[in-house]
Amino acid sequence: MKCEIISVGTELLLGEIANTDAQTISLGLSELGINVYHHTVVGDNPKRLAEVMETAKKRSDIIITTGGLGPTADDLTKETIASCFGKKLYLDKPQLERMYKRMGRNITKNNERQVMLPEGCEILENDWGTAPGCAFYAEGCHVIMLPGPPSECTPMFKNRARPYLERLCTDGQVIRSRFIKVFGLGESAMEEKIRELMDTMENPTVAPYAKEGECEIRVTAKAAGEEEAYGIIDPIVEKIKGILGDVVYGVDVSSLEETVVKGLIDKGLTISTAESCTGGLIGKRITDISGCSGCYFGGVVSYSNDVKHKVLGVGEKTLRDFGAVSPETAIEMARGVRKLTGSDIGISVTGVAGPGGGSEEKPVGTVYIGISAQGLDKVIKPELRSARTRARIRNMSAGHALDLVRREILLK
Amino acid sequence: MKCEIISVGTELLLGEIANTDAQTISLGLSELGINVYHHTVVGDNPKRLAEVMETAKKRSDIIITTGGLGPTADDLTKETIASCFGKKLYLDKPQLERMYKRMGRNITKNNERQVMLPEGCEILENDWGTAPGCAFYAEGCHVIMLPGPPSECTPMFKNRARPYLERLCTDGQVIRSRFIKVFGLGESAMEEKIRELMDTMENPTVAPYAKEGECEIRVTAKAAGEEEAYGIIDPIVEKIKGILGDVVYGVDVSSLEETVVKGLIDKGLTISTAESCTGGLIGKRITDISGCSGCYFGGVVSYSNDVKHKVLGVGEKTLRDFGAVSPETAIEMARGVRKLTGSDIGISVTGVAGPGGGSEEKPVGTVYIGISAQGLDKVIKPELRSARTRARIRNMSAGHALDLVRREILLK
Repeated sequence: MKCEIISVGTELLLGEIANTDAQTISLGLSELGINVYHHTVVGDNPKRLAEVMETAKKRSDIIITTGGLGPTADDLTKETIASCFGKKLYLDKPQLERMYKRMGRNITKNNERQVMLPEGCEILENDWGTAPGCAFYAEGCHVIMLPGPPSECTPMFKNRARPYLERLCTDGQVIRSRFIKVFGLGESAMEEKIRELMDTMENPTVAPYAKEGECEIRVTAKAAGEEEAYGIIDPIVEKIKGILGDVVYGVDVSSLEETVVKGLIDKGLTISTAESCTGGLIGKRITDISGCSGCYFGGVVSYSNDVKHKVLGVGEKTLRDFGAVSPETAIEMARGVRKLTGSDIGISVTGVAGPGGGSEEKPVGTVYIGISAQGLDKVIKPELRSARTRARIRNMSAGHALDLVRREILLK
Repeated sequence: MKCEIISVGTELLLGEIANTDAQTISLGLSELGINVYHHTVVGDNPKRLAEVMETAKKRSDIIITTGGLGPTADDLTKETIASCFGKKLYLDKPQLERMYKRMGRNITKNNERQVMLPEGCEILENDWGTAPGCAFYAEGCHVIMLPGPPSECTPMFKNRARPYLERLCTDGQVIRSRFIKVFGLGESAMEEKIRELMDTMENPTVAPYAKEGECEIRVTAKAAGEEEAYGIIDPIVEKIKGILGDVVYGVDVSSLEETVVKGLIDKGLTISTAESCTGGLIGKRITDISGCSGCYFGGVVSYSNDVKHKVLGVGEKTLRDFGAVSPETAIEMARGVRKLTGSDIGISVTGVAGPGGGSEEKPVGTVYIGISAQGLDKVIKPELRSARTRARIRNMSAGHALDLVRREILLK
């Protein structure tokens, strides 16, 4: 099956937003084993949309469109595509009722346009916005129309388009995946270790992805049912975990911070943060996780030496003799914040994030991470040579700090 | 002039990355007044690339490609496009010398492929990577090829492709822009205020953009020289600032945090942060700005009530009587962090970021921001009804905190 994604929206052509819908949908199609050969973006212009549809019909088995389903005059996707396939639009009464319930009775004629749908289509109900999507098969092509805003497109793809596509391409089977999350191993080093599995496995398939400073491995199986699919997947997940060892920080979790927060709550442990060069980023990442108050007390952003000394109790002599960026300062920060807040664990970061502030002895990218807990006092100096920019050095440092908590506390 | 952007790379079709190159280039073209009618993405496949090139030749005056210029066997953009226009590739000696200098003498045959260029092309030197770009005019079409990695594509567009395009479409004139940054006014409210300028101005042009929780207005002029261009732009910038008033936080600055950090340093003032629901995000945003140590001492992430009380000195009675999310707690946090660090200004945030933790009295999105300085004690409750998600509530709260510093300190 060859698929093409057509995104409709002048805002994309003006560069106001990136086409993240195409990315989201492509990831999902890759999981289903559907090949995507083209992404096309076209403005809110019926003539040009009709032209790209004609081209797409000839070269693709599945066409997924995003955008142009809204209530304004330039939302013309449904009209234009229906006409490309010789279909008429009809007013769908149940969808109109649904819209009344959602928006109240003051619906304008323009709003009604959103529930004008191509005859004979399957309606894809939109629980995340007002404009429904739809799907139909005509002239050898499956056409699926989804709304443009990513907050609607993403759940509409996952919950409406994906099941439709699964029915198409699996002969009644289901496709399921697990995602293995890896921190602390480069993409190529990881691929080398699982190359054989990647190249030889057919069901499940094994596919790696590089993320910002991390990697991810998707293991995907096709089977008669969900349980059977996971029955095929899980032994391979275990095998990969065995090959990669403790760089795997989780399976089907959203992030390292989620693993750390959940792990600490499970163990009944509490943590606090002392941040210099990361400036609050570790706290921000921990508090991205809803429910983190179950383990996170808070912390100190000790950007100045004065705060390091007065609030965290880092020795003036330590700062003078070893400098703010030193293993000695790092460990005193971690101990200090633990004492200050009364948490079980203290974690700290101090370093040179650049672009200024580096020296020959302590170049940009020199970072120390400290951890303090009952019977534990440790400092590491992560390898950040590949990070280069201030943003990446800071983000990688925060990642290494979270990973240190995982390794020293959760794996023990 | 009609332009089309063709991005070459299987990683885009697999959804591994979003097509940010197309966004960057589209923004730049919009500034130059060049219309973009299509974005196309195609994999590292010569046949399909040739097909989309044939289509593009017929409908576009300018074709800009990204990707496929690298050293590996699947980097086939130059070969394929040259052949579409009946051109041969030649080995460019000066570029080979340049590559030797950059990479040392151990260059493989594959690396040499990067300096095989279409005959008669203008070379676009790549100071940000190894593969040069190129441009040529043939069969009524201008073709510009840029490398794919955004860290190369962005500067190559700005410094190489943009001047080339400027020559094409301005009869020897230059095009320059200023960007007016706005916080605290919705996109449609802003557009209403500047509608007349947007609709009537021709040189300069006035175009609004919505960003995450902020807005931006681009003012663009065409003139014989840079000085003349800014001479046309600047009175309109002043006019817009007059119309919009103090929601304008800067012109040609990267962010609200940059305005705040530079403004505080200019005034010789120092600041510290006390964060509850934002969990370190304000500190993170301030420390995104290199050089912020000139005004930022650090702060406290007081996620737990215990830290609010013990470290920041918020009264136990305050927490008991009014709760952690209250104007009373917010101002005591701001006063407390100011006292703790000895900074001139203390800024605080406490609120319910959700999804849990809301109540009828204090629903998700209830946030208080406090500021304390010499002769100043103030709390605001920003309107965050439109924010909806935890991430947006937190980010908007941090924005309002920074904006409060700007209004109460920098504008006074």
